[in-house]
Amino acid sequence: MIRTLAVTEDSKIIMNLSIEKLNEMRLKWFWVDFENPNEEEISLLEHGFQFHPLAIEDCLYMLQRPKLDYYEGYIFFVVNALNKETLEAEEIDFFVGKNYVVSVHLQHSSEMNGAWNKVAEEKKIENQDPIFIAHLILDKITDEYFPAVFQIENKIDQLEDNEEGYSIRVLIDKVFDIRKDLIKIRRLINSMRDLLYRILNSSHLKDFHEQKLYFDDIYDHLLKLSEMVESNLEITSDMRDSYLAMNSNRMNSIMMLLTVITTIFIPLTFIAGIYGMNFRYMPELEWRYGYFAVLGLMGMIGGIMFIWFKRKGWFDIYK
Amino acid sequence: MIRTLAVTEDSKIIMNLSIEKLNEMRLKWFWVDFENPNEEEISLLEHGFQFHPLAIEDCLYMLQRPKLDYYEGYIFFVVNALNKETLEAEEIDFFVGKNYVVSVHLQHSSEMNGAWNKVAEEKKIENQDPIFIAHLILDKITDEYFPAVFQIENKIDQLEDNEEGYSIRVLIDKVFDIRKDLIKIRRLINSMRDLLYRILNSSHLKDFHEQKLYFDDIYDHLLKLSEMVESNLEITSDMRDSYLAMNSNRMNSIMMLLTVITTIFIPLTFIAGIYGMNFRYMPELEWRYGYFAVLGLMGMIGGIMFIWFKRKGWFDIYK
Amino acid sequence: MIRTLAVTEDSKIIMNLSIEKLNEMRLKWFWVDFENPNEEEISLLEHGFQFHPLAIEDCLYMLQRPKLDYYEGYIFFVVNALNKETLEAEEIDFFVGKNYVVSVHLQHSSEMNGAWNKVAEEKKIENQDPIFIAHLILDKITDEYFPAVFQIENKIDQLEDNEEGYSIRVLIDKVFDIRKDLIKIRRLINSMRDLLYRILNSSHLKDFHEQKLYFDDIYDHLLKLSEMVESNLEITSDMRDSYLAMNSNRMNSIMMLLTVITTIFIPLTFIAGIYGMNFRYMPELEWRYGYFAVLGLMGMIGGIMFIWFKRKGWFDIYK
Amino acid sequence: MIRTLAVTEDSKIIMNLSIEKLNEMRLKWFWVDFENPNEEEISLLEHGFQFHPLAIEDCLYMLQRPKLDYYEGYIFFVVNALNKETLEAEEIDFFVGKNYVVSVHLQHSSEMNGAWNKVAEEKKIENQDPIFIAHLILDKITDEYFPAVFQIENKIDQLEDNEEGYSIRVLIDKVFDIRKDLIKIRRLINSMRDLLYRILNSSHLKDFHEQKLYFDDIYDHLLKLSEMVESNLEITSDMRDSYLAMNSNRMNSIMMLLTVITTIFIPLTFIAGIYGMNFRYMPELEWRYGYFAVLGLMGMIGGIMFIWFKRKGWFDIYK
Amino acid sequence: MIRTLAVTEDSKIIMNLSIEKLNEMRLKWFWVDFENPNEEEISLLEHGFQFHPLAIEDCLYMLQRPKLDYYEGYIFFVVNALNKETLEAEEIDFFVGKNYVVSVHLQHSSEMNGAWNKVAEEKKIENQDPIFIAHLILDKITDEYFPAVFQIENKIDQLEDNEEGYSIRVLIDKVFDIRKDLIKIRRLINSMRDLLYRILNSSHLKDFHEQKLYFDDIYDHLLKLSEMVESNLEITSDMRDSYLAMNSNRMNSIMMLLTVITTIFIPLTFIAGIYGMNFRYMPELEWRYGYFAVLGLMGMIGGIMFIWFKRKGWFDIYK
Ligand SMILES: [Mg+2]
Ligand SMILES: [Mg+2]
Ligand SMILES: [Mg+2]
Ligand SMILES: [Mg+2]
Ligand SMILES: [Mg+2]
Ligand SMILES: [Mg+2]
Ligand SMILES: [Mg+2]
Ligand SMILES: [Mg+2]
Ligand SMILES: [Mg+2]
Ligand SMILES: [Mg+2]
Ligand SMILES: [Mg+2]
Ligand SMILES: [Mg+2]
Ligand SMILES: [Mg+2]
Ligand SMILES: [Mg+2]
Ligand SMILES: [Mg+2]
Ligand SMILES: [Mg+2]
Ligand SMILES: [Mg+2]
Ligand SMILES: [Mg+2]
Ligand SMILES: [Mg+2]
Ligand SMILES: [Mg+2]
Ligand SMILES: [Mg+2]
Ligand SMILES: [Mg+2]
Ligand SMILES: [Mg+2]
Ligand SMILES: [Mg+2]
Ligand SMILES: [Mg+2]
Ligand SMILES: [Mg+2]
Ligand SMILES: [Mg+2]
Ligand SMILES: [Mg+2]
Ligand SMILES: [Mg+2]
Ligand SMILES: [Mg+2]
Ligand SMILES: [Mg+2]
Repeated sequence: MIRTLAVTEDSKIIMNLSIEKLNEMRLKWFWVDFENPNEEEISLLEHGFQFHPLAIEDCLYMLQRPKLDYYEGYIFFVVNALNKETLEAEEIDFFVGKNYVVSVHLQHSSEMNGAWNKVAEEKKIENQDPIFIAHLILDKITDEYFPAVFQIENKIDQLEDNEEGYSIRVLIDKVFDIRKDLIKIRRLINSMRDLLYRILNSSHLKDFHEQKLYFDDIYDHLLKLSEMVESNLEITSDMRDSYLAMNSNRMNSIMMLLTVITTIFIPLTFIAGIYGMNFRYMPELEWRYGYFAVLGLMGMIGGIMFIWFKRKGWFDIYK
Repeated sequence: MIRTLAVTEDSKIIMNLSIEKLNEMRLKWFWVDFENPNEEEISLLEHGFQFHPLAIEDCLYMLQRPKLDYYEGYIFFVVNALNKETLEAEEIDFFVGKNYVVSVHLQHSSEMNGAWNKVAEEKKIENQDPIFIAHLILDKITDEYFPAVFQIENKIDQLEDNEEGYSIRVLIDKVFDIRKDLIKIRRLINSMRDLLYRILNSSHLKDFHEQKLYFDDIYDHLLKLSEMVESNLEITSDMRDSYLAMNSNRMNSIMMLLTVITTIFIPLTFIAGIYGMNFRYMPELEWRYGYFAVLGLMGMIGGIMFIWFKRKGWFDIYK
Repeated sequence: MIRTLAVTEDSKIIMNLSIEKLNEMRLKWFWVDFENPNEEEISLLEHGFQFHPLAIEDCLYMLQRPKLDYYEGYIFFVVNALNKETLEAEEIDFFVGKNYVVSVHLQHSSEMNGAWNKVAEEKKIENQDPIFIAHLILDKITDEYFPAVFQIENKIDQLEDNEEGYSIRVLIDKVFDIRKDLIKIRRLINSMRDLLYRILNSSHLKDFHEQKLYFDDIYDHLLKLSEMVESNLEITSDMRDSYLAMNSNRMNSIMMLLTVITTIFIPLTFIAGIYGMNFRYMPELEWRYGYFAVLGLMGMIGGIMFIWFKRKGWFDIYK
Repeated sequence: MIRTLAVTEDSKIIMNLSIEKLNEMRLKWFWVDFENPNEEEISLLEHGFQFHPLAIEDCLYMLQRPKLDYYEGYIFFVVNALNKETLEAEEIDFFVGKNYVVSVHLQHSSEMNGAWNKVAEEKKIENQDPIFIAHLILDKITDEYFPAVFQIENKIDQLEDNEEGYSIRVLIDKVFDIRKDLIKIRRLINSMRDLLYRILNSSHLKDFHEQKLYFDDIYDHLLKLSEMVESNLEITSDMRDSYLAMNSNRMNSIMMLLTVITTIFIPLTFIAGIYGMNFRYMPELEWRYGYFAVLGLMGMIGGIMFIWFKRKGWFDIYK
Repeated sequence: MIRTLAVTEDSKIIMNLSIEKLNEMRLKWFWVDFENPNEEEISLLEHGFQFHPLAIEDCLYMLQRPKLDYYEGYIFFVVNALNKETLEAEEIDFFVGKNYVVSVHLQHSSEMNGAWNKVAEEKKIENQDPIFIAHLILDKITDEYFPAVFQIENKIDQLEDNEEGYSIRVLIDKVFDIRKDLIKIRRLINSMRDLLYRILNSSHLKDFHEQKLYFDDIYDHLLKLSEMVESNLEITSDMRDSYLAMNSNRMNSIMMLLTVITTIFIPLTFIAGIYGMNFRYMPELEWRYGYFAVLGLMGMIGGIMFIWFKRKGWFDIYK
């Protein structure tokens, strides 16, 4: 699917011109967006725009980390949007020439739509140019990282408060899942951050102070995101260790409780065993209140042990 | 809320001039402080001072890491003060032009007040200028980091001494909490440190040797703070491991004690069981002192086991 | 074994010319591939091509990390292909001169064959030159890293889904094996990545913009591979910790179940012991329904303990 | 307390001249050492030497990491000596001008005394100058780090040999204490190492080849010290893990021994229980040698279990 | 002990000339090797060669990390050979001047002998010069690192295969010992690698392309060694974690087996206890086959528990 947006020399926007028209008309600049291009559309990239085969190859295979390449006459960007469901990277590629932007993405992209609509509805279109479009796409993509990171931070806060009263074992499981998401998202954010760093330090942007400010604004956000993710990874690492320690403590304290119960009855059972022996001559057996005396002894021993263990806190089950 | 401070050409301070007056009068320099600005005040930033929209956006959203941006005619700082209660960052933004400082913060800031009062009460006002105000704000903010870090160091020392006699489990919990605070505070300090590094190595400051000395003084403090936090993180990591090992040892030694008790009675109960059997021909049962002999045997076996286990140290509960 | 490929000045390919012919004929460029060279062939490197003894030494011993050395008149590359079976490095060395490529490898190499065949079958041979051959070899080698990394990622995904229903202990074992492969493969990929970085930043390539694009394309892939491996190492580290925690939980919960059973019967056995005592005067023994009352008491105590432990979840065995 | 040392133009040393005399006389250079200066002496720094207020502030508060600052006309050093008792940093500050050294320290310093005496007793005083004094102070301070690190290495070696026969639990405790000292001392050494690096790479020293050699000699030592500390931290980390594993093994093997004893008696007690039952018709009870047969059976079962467990090594307590 | 080797202007080698002769004769270059020099020989370094006191100090104390210092007229190298027995560093120092090499070592060094003999037996002596001697010494020293690392790799492979059938506890012990050796050897290799890096990037070598190739060859080896050690450290770290997990599993599974045995007998003993009670009215006791019925019941209960636990795999002892 192709859509086009052209800006005439008197700063009017015309939507959905055909490619032929774009070439014929005198335009200030134009933007062509390829969504999941078919074979015919791909050949347009090759023979129409005559982009470099390496760049076209990059457009068609989903195996790129964010990068930018300088070709003669245009710059080629590969960037990663974040799929909010899977937290996987979704690649968006675009070519920025003097008077055009060509964007290519194999799946529907809400970020791209956001940028497209912002341009289509913009009033001060005279201030815009292809570099600004590049900034706009990067800005929309980066803005969409925040909700994902915020959502993870919220999950972490919920785990900490644990108002749902999850058991420690569930908390452990959840913290492992959160860490996996953080590791995934970090790979994305850090490679985008490195890309922005390269853009900002590129000699091509040296003389464009105003543009630099806009890319710098995105770089700020990516730095912030990267630090948030890093810090959350450390916090979850500590949470995990803490939960594991708590869980281990809890299980040990249960085992201790059970063992304490056994330990109280073992000597009592031994005493019962003694008076269950069948020796002919066992004087206690003949006593009138022997039975009650022994019951009393057992109660006393059991009671002392109970109180002693209780005071030691060995009946307490931790959390 | 707005307040103003103006320095006249003959180095007199005038407080709370209106914005209009600031523009009309011939001033050496002036400082406008916006605390939690309302819509009207915000529009002053936009249309009165004509700051760049990106910078104003940064002022209004609390999502910035410390940074500085060079705009035409002014420098824009974003810095983070430390909320002593929550250990969260509180953003303070300020613009430094040739003859003015404009500071913006969404919440009341004691650091900003400190800097403001220091200028208002200063006698040698002729030595001061907008860059010095920037230094003053940064200095006050950085100085307020120390009490927070010292407080954490004190907590660590108290944990180590443990004069309150906390149980190991409480110590473990406390050391996890301290680590979380350290991770939070490190993020703040390190990003401020990086900002100061950027200020010191900025080409804009190249020719200002005297100013550099003042920013360098702040950078020293941030380096020191950063090292203190890093070192405390390592120490608490070791403390945590040590406490976990001690706790595990303690619980294991309790289980061992309980198991030792059981192990002593098990053979005795077995002997009692033997003489509780109902075989017709069991010669020992007929002996006059069989019962006492068996009691004696049991006492001996139990005693030997007790002494042996005692010597091995298996009755000892660790700490 | 030697094979040759020569490109004439009118861009025709001639295969398997003898070394002497290569020297006599006027050629645009030629490529000689040594596979597991015998002594005579090695002496050709020394006296025929007069390569530097250090480079020849590197060709003959399998102890090189990827590197490139600049000798007078030629560049010497050492690169590592990946043996898909063992995940060990297989060294491939090649010399790139102005009008020749000489490649040396001690074992059969499918990557080398792939590059060779691609050149042999190429139609636009006029665009190719020795530097392009170097790119082709590096490209084929790097492409073959992906299946190995993908295979590991698949294994990780399978572990996570665990549709085969492996026990946790088997999962632990498998995750350790995967990590070992990842560590091995990382050494390879990172050293190749560093080599490509050096190639791209070499002053020798400064003026070859088109060539740079091709090496840059390989560098992209190696960066991507390196990040994939790094990220998978972190994910498997978390998986391992998670599995270890789960396994420990599982064993502990079994021990708890067993201990719970014992703990239920211990007091019951104690009661039976009491009524097994042989005291002359034990009133309960005389009661008509004493036996059934005690059985009922035991049932009640056992039942209450069972229900209580059940509710606490102490009978549950985890996963 | 102040002491002075002056070198006349004909290279004679005069001790303890008053400050006024130092200013009046024609001197090659002089050195003033402030130990724990009182208010009057501090005002000398301010109004006598007119040092920068930032530097004087640094002298009076103990919160500096090692650093050097270039002021107009003099260099200001802050360095850290090591308190051998507490392993805490002791700050020493000094100003190095063209013809003077002024040193300030809040506590008695044996390192400073060492440097002072070396100068006072030196015969070839003509080769010395203020920069050499700076080197001398740094050299004495650095030399005093070695005994502390050697002492820690000795402790590590003693732990490894463990000729005192400490229990594993004591060893664990000791290794944790050593690690804490190493972390403390590392902070000190690494910040001194960074300072020396800055001195060596300072543009101010560019033309002083001979002086550079002397500072380089100190830098070598600090690099060596830093590596020793780092390496010892890694070794103690492994020792700690090893001890923890050994301790856990030991306790587990004791629990196993105890459990094995119980496990042997449990079936025997069961058999005794069977023949303690009161069924009217139990043929074995009537047999002549029933009792001895059962005793024999018990002995056999117990014996087999004992031998089997013994062979498995389950009676062995580890270390 | 001193030995000398002189090369005359017509490229003849003369061995063991006296120091005086070396000064008198016209020589292309000479090499003096000091092994464990006595006081007289040391004074030769001082007054004969007039080396810098700092360099001589470095020769006499064994506390140097590898380094090179540029003095006027000569370069001073400190390098570390590896003692194959102890894996400790053995220091070798040498001075390289325009027409001489002076080497100093406090112990016998096979590496130094190897280099010495290689020169003494060399035929193409005209290609050699003092820089080449430096290369030769470094090359011999580096070559001797490989056997040590290979030996460690072999030990790791043997641990993995474990054909000797060591118990897990022994394996754990061995892997800790290997890691300690790796940490030691890494310190050595990495500091030698850094030295070679400094040599290669030194401005002094800028114009010596041929020499650079030779040092580069050594640097390759050190990089390779460094990566091997790093990678082996990671592999052993995983092995250790794996062994610890296996050992813990094994001990837990033994405890489980023992507990399972107890758990089977506990209910049976309880039943025996019931029928050992002395109630007057217990109908089962009167039944003709009551005893056999109860034995059958016990057999059934025991059997069911046995089969159930068996199926659960709780009788299995891991590895
Ligand atoms: Mg693509
Ligand atoms: Mg690229
Ligand atoms: Mg944005
Ligand atoms: Mg934005
Ligand atoms: Mg939070
Ligand atoms: Mg999960
Ligand atoms: Mg912004
Ligand atoms: Mg803001
Ligand atoms: Mg301050
Ligand atoms: Mg402390
Ligand atoms: Mg808490
Ligand atoms: Mg200061
Ligand atoms: Mg080779
Ligand atoms: Mg090389
Ligand atoms: Mg490819
Ligand atoms: Mg996956
Ligand atoms: Mg395996
Ligand atoms: Mg590509
Ligand atoms: Mg001070
Ligand atoms: Mg400084
Ligand atoms: Mg010294
Ligand atoms: Mg040692
Ligand atoms: Mg201690
Ligand atoms: Mg030295
Ligand atoms: Mg760890
Ligand atoms: Mg030495
Ligand atoms: Mg040096
Ligand atoms: Mg070699
Ligand atoms: Mg191996
Ligand atoms: Mg050992
Ligand atoms: Mg080589």
